Amino acid sequence: MLNCPIPKSEYDKVILAHGGGGKLSHQLLEKIFFSQFDNELLNQQNDSAVFDLKDQRLAFTTDSYVVQPIFFPGGNIGELAVYGTVNDLSVSGAKPLYLSAGFIIEEGLPMDDLWKIVVSMKEAAEKSGVQIITGDTKVVEKGKGDKVFINTSGVGVVYDGINISPKRCRPGDAIILSGRIADHGIAIMSAREGLQFETTIVSDTAPLNELVEKMLNASKNIHTMRDATRGGIASTLNEIASSANVGVNINENSIPINDQVIGACEILGLDPLYIANEGKLVAFVDSNDAEKVLGVMKSHPLGVDSIIIGEVVEDHPGRVVMKTSIGSSRIVDMISGEQLPRIC
Amino acid sequence: MLNCPIPKSEYDKVILAHGGGGKLSHQLLEKIFFSQFDNELLNQQNDSAVFDLKDQRLAFTTDSYVVQPIFFPGGNIGELAVYGTVNDLSVSGAKPLYLSAGFIIEEGLPMDDLWKIVVSMKEAAEKSGVQIITGDTKVVEKGKGDKVFINTSGVGVVYDGINISPKRCRPGDAIILSGRIADHGIAIMSAREGLQFETTIVSDTAPLNELVEKMLNASKNIHTMRDATRGGIASTLNEIASSANVGVNINENSIPINDQVIGACEILGLDPLYIANEGKLVAFVDSNDAEKVLGVMKSHPLGVDSIIIGEVVEDHPGRVVMKTSIGSSRIVDMISGEQLPRIC
Repeated sequence: MLNCPIPKSEYDKVILAHGGGGKLSHQLLEKIFFSQFDNELLNQQNDSAVFDLKDQRLAFTTDSYVVQPIFFPGGNIGELAVYGTVNDLSVSGAKPLYLSAGFIIEEGLPMDDLWKIVVSMKEAAEKSGVQIITGDTKVVEKGKGDKVFINTSGVGVVYDGINISPKRCRPGDAIILSGRIADHGIAIMSAREGLQFETTIVSDTAPLNELVEKMLNASKNIHTMRDATRGGIASTLNEIASSANVGVNINENSIPINDQVIGACEILGLDPLYIANEGKLVAFVDSNDAEKVLGVMKSHPLGVDSIIIGEVVEDHPGRVVMKTSIGSSRIVDMISGEQLPRIC
Repeated sequence: MLNCPIPKSEYDKVILAHGGGGKLSHQLLEKIFFSQFDNELLNQQNDSAVFDLKDQRLAFTTDSYVVQPIFFPGGNIGELAVYGTVNDLSVSGAKPLYLSAGFIIEEGLPMDDLWKIVVSMKEAAEKSGVQIITGDTKVVEKGKGDKVFINTSGVGVVYDGINISPKRCRPGDAIILSGRIADHGIAIMSAREGLQFETTIVSDTAPLNELVEKMLNASKNIHTMRDATRGGIASTLNEIASSANVGVNINENSIPINDQVIGACEILGLDPLYIANEGKLVAFVDSNDAEKVLGVMKSHPLGVDSIIIGEVVEDHPGRVVMKTSIGSSRIVDMISGEQLPRIC
């Protein structure tokens, strides 16, 4: 067998940051997973793999949810698992249809907690118009898991005439963000740290399929779309800039953030650009269609705060550059370590 | 919200046996999962959900693998995860095409172990003719997982004219078993207990898609098929008897078991009928086609020991009755507790 491509001198063990969505995550993906599972569909590096079966384009995606705590302000691991996979299908230009649900339960989980989670998954599936049609349950010994982990995979049908891919965005594209950032990550962190604010900061977990459908109806020229989850909008924009080998310029002033979230970020020493969202997307849209797409987004309850936050440029390919509120420019790099473990 | 349908007086917490594939697993499935996610496709209770998209029949399945130890005689968790999902699609009458892979890694997993697992998944995918096209990696803190858990979900296309379902078998059907039972479970247990035998008992983990394809080519009258994993052939036969509301008669003498496996079962106090297999299936075939199907099975390397072990009867619907080697009859019930935790 080939030697492990990550040398022992570098990392002989997996560390938390390998799951953080930043540079180390990407190294692990590239060197271990992509190097072995190498195939055209995987190499799309999209939120879902898109493939043709006869005359149909299908999208297929998977995510495991290990969020801690399992109940948090604004949601729980169950509905997060449904919405997360619904959103991964949606931002790939697909109508989500069917989900699977795989549970890994730690012995001792209160039956009532499992019940609450399952009930909220049912409600989330109904709200998203999907069905959970296959599943699996495993139980591990106390101390070998952490309450419950949930994997959801999903299958959807790509809308006719739609081709969304991280590689498709191009200089001139407007970058639209669908609302205020960092709510999910801060809700989780506040729950963990026992922080109290005037009003509770709640997760933004929500199904984006309806919003996306309206956007796709408004324009065939949405080139790239992604929900800005683990690693926040900074990681999402970096991944896209790198995939398409384009430059991304954004304006700090245009990025909407809840005041209390800003306060919490200051207390916790966190940069909101890197904090996970669970109901926000960024779309890279041909500039001619940008206002039209923005219009339909603002008319949807999950997109009322939508705003153009920047544009794609030819300069500095692979890099994200932010014009700050004081007028200077700074590179928004991919995070290298681990800011918030187990955020989703 | 409705109260949890499993009362506190019965089980206020999830216990290991809820994941064992026996009566408690079924209670959890029925009362918690099926009661909420209730839909026609889920209610098929097949190894895969089968649904139509335009003029295509697709199969979709998921399984999480938590086997301990992650490396065992004859395999590891990675190839098990690939073959397991390939087999779930196959026994639903589908050609497996695409897999997802979701990893939940415990911080501290040696990078070399992850690498070996991923390499063996690649090889297993190649051997099965499938591609791993989408994935996800999460890392949890030391002590919050157990080395690595892997979820694989899979999509396949159901062969034309094939309709496999647990509800389709009927009195008169011959029951064919594809080979010797209990190798996988005993390989795992031997590794855990440090048992030594003259020759090492190795897991039977293998991809059954090619064997199944040959069977389906030989006959359109295979009514029901299932791979006999967690809970062994006893659980598999009970599930089918209950689903189709038919009686199942089997002959103890006809069930092939490796001598060393019999020895190990005696030492460990285990009944081989309840022990997991990872490369064996049972098929319920119209009696007119049984010899033909048996013939093609025996001509395939993974089916050389195939044998008719019994038949479907009108008597004792929902029950499995075994004629023992000493000539008496006994009911082979669904196991109620947990014989072997974390076998797959």
